[in-house]
Amino acid sequence: MSSALTDLFPLPIVQAPMAGGVSVPQLAAAVSEAGGLGFLAAGYKTADGMYQEIKQLRGLMNRPFGVNVFMPQPEYPGASTGSTGAANAAPPSGAVEVYAHQLAGEAAWYETELGDPDSGRDDGYDAKLAVLLDNPVPVVSFHFGVPSREVFDKLRRAGTFTLVTATTAEEARAVEQAGADAVIAQGVEAGGHQGTHRDLPENDGSGIGLLSLVAQIREAVSIPIVAAGGIMRGSQIAAVLAAGASAAQLGTAFLATPESGAQAVHKQALTNPLFARTELTRAFSGRPARALVNRFVREHGPYAPAAYPEINHLTSPLRKAAAKAGDAQGLSLWAGQGHRMARELPAGQLVAVLAEELDAARTALSAQGGPR
Amino acid sequence: MSSALTDLFPLPIVQAPMAGGVSVPQLAAAVSEAGGLGFLAAGYKTADGMYQEIKQLRGLMNRPFGVNVFMPQPEYPGASTGSTGAANAAPPSGAVEVYAHQLAGEAAWYETELGDPDSGRDDGYDAKLAVLLDNPVPVVSFHFGVPSREVFDKLRRAGTFTLVTATTAEEARAVEQAGADAVIAQGVEAGGHQGTHRDLPENDGSGIGLLSLVAQIREAVSIPIVAAGGIMRGSQIAAVLAAGASAAQLGTAFLATPESGAQAVHKQALTNPLFARTELTRAFSGRPARALVNRFVREHGPYAPAAYPEINHLTSPLRKAAAKAGDAQGLSLWAGQGHRMARELPAGQLVAVLAEELDAARTALSAQGGPR
Repeated sequence: MSSALTDLFPLPIVQAPMAGGVSVPQLAAAVSEAGGLGFLAAGYKTADGMYQEIKQLRGLMNRPFGVNVFMPQPEYPGASTGSTGAANAAPPSGAVEVYAHQLAGEAAWYETELGDPDSGRDDGYDAKLAVLLDNPVPVVSFHFGVPSREVFDKLRRAGTFTLVTATTAEEARAVEQAGADAVIAQGVEAGGHQGTHRDLPENDGSGIGLLSLVAQIREAVSIPIVAAGGIMRGSQIAAVLAAGASAAQLGTAFLATPESGAQAVHKQALTNPLFARTELTRAFSGRPARALVNRFVREHGPYAPAAYPEINHLTSPLRKAAAKAGDAQGLSLWAGQGHRMARELPAGQLVAVLAEELDAARTALSAQGGPR
Repeated sequence: MSSALTDLFPLPIVQAPMAGGVSVPQLAAAVSEAGGLGFLAAGYKTADGMYQEIKQLRGLMNRPFGVNVFMPQPEYPGASTGSTGAANAAPPSGAVEVYAHQLAGEAAWYETELGDPDSGRDDGYDAKLAVLLDNPVPVVSFHFGVPSREVFDKLRRAGTFTLVTATTAEEARAVEQAGADAVIAQGVEAGGHQGTHRDLPENDGSGIGLLSLVAQIREAVSIPIVAAGGIMRGSQIAAVLAAGASAAQLGTAFLATPESGAQAVHKQALTNPLFARTELTRAFSGRPARALVNRFVREHGPYAPAAYPEINHLTSPLRKAAAKAGDAQGLSLWAGQGHRMARELPAGQLVAVLAEELDAARTALSAQGGPR
């Protein structure tokens, strides 16, 4: 059952796809070469940009790897159309404009302009799928929703193993029913965007801790589980395997490696005592994402509407300008709850250390098995 | 190191103390008799009420058990006194009165009156400690803060093993430095009150998932860790042991047993699909506590000030009246994130099943150790 996934790579260690230039081919190559599963992040890229990275990665190594694709965000259900389905809750009328007004001072400060909130809702989904069917890759994962059964059928025929993020047992059931090969259980600890299928503000504050989520999903579905959220040590990988997962997915742990494409200011912030805590915020994108609490999150988070991807488009120039200025207080410093445990090891070495820690934890746990 | 704790009881299973009449002597006795560690909850009781329960429990069995004590809540730091220390943030002037005004309709509906918010801040702490030093018990745990070193010294001389709740690595360090024998790592998944040492509203939304918290605390202190929050299955106990804990503490799992003193309406609500999610709310007590989201939480949670124990006193008659009426929509339905996994087994049988599941998970994990 879980063999199909773990046959692809010897160690139960998946490098989380991190969009925005973090999961570069060099990082994915190092992880896959070390026996884990490296991942590229197609999010925010064009289909061709994604394809170029895939070719680059294939030039670096011959091991299996994955590509993560963001699901298109349907139009909001309108009174006129009466459409419902999988759409996010519609933001209150004018909410994006009000938030843009609030951010005007940021744009002035960083000497840039706000982005156009209406720059598209589908992140090039169809074009990316076409590339991935024409040039199949070993693994494809989806975030922010569930593709149609047809998509899974096509990818399976292409020889691609499929994963979809779930943040609740209900979402995991939807993932299994649609025909995915495995489910990513994303705990509330995870850095970056929660892959919640529909963003409904009334569910804010209900994010589920990883260890509870894995147990709930284990009893809800029979497909393999990849556990994600706050995992920084091999002992935690042992923990999620004990709870019923087939592998662990780590983002922040790999963000800190030299191979990652994260901004230097972002890497340094992970262990900077100035940034003591993280929270889920809509400040940067309009969807809940876990970031280190900095000035931007504190000032704007409480006022950011649930409007993805409009807010993401809106703040894009601000984030670029803050990055260029090396200003950690204006950047989206995505980070999981274990950020202070980040190690600067090269990615391949990190995989080896995690595997050693996993073995040690396994041995210690079985040694406790007898009478004490 | 951790032997002192686990020598007291053969299985790494602690029954969480649940105040408000849930952790009755019958429940603690069943858990301790089955090889776990049963717990009484002294919170909201008089010192004599606590003592009567201890005597009752001792009449039921001769195994080790624990008693949980709430820390007194210091007066708010006032501009006049300039005191700071361990006090919670002061609520805005008049906030308790405004909330009382909001709850007036509830009092009318349930035909009762609101409680007096100024009914005391110390929960009889000194008197309870005096009883526990005069008549020592095997284990004492503390919630909502850290006792002085003197208290730990006296309890140690009395032969009592001590534990204190921590919700962050910083709090765990404070627990170790004060002289406690072990620390309870309470994840954000946990039902009921978070044992945060100081309630600071600016930290809302920063609750840490259990698996991340255990790993962080494991590297911050050398005393043993008891892991709490969302644990409902033996596989999850194996998980926290793999992550470095010495035992797991389960509340909601035992709340559902026939021995627990929880209201029938509360037990039934745990698995009622009407209550699909939980959240941390100040609605009932003024301090963040995880409850099933019902009408009371939805209507009042967003407006409840950070004012513990004032709000707890204020709502006490409402909660009693709702319980008497069997009205799940007005009760504080404390529940951890795994509530839907609750099993109605007798407590001793639940301990046995958890131990079997733990062994199975241990065996399965060590079997994965070789090449695959």
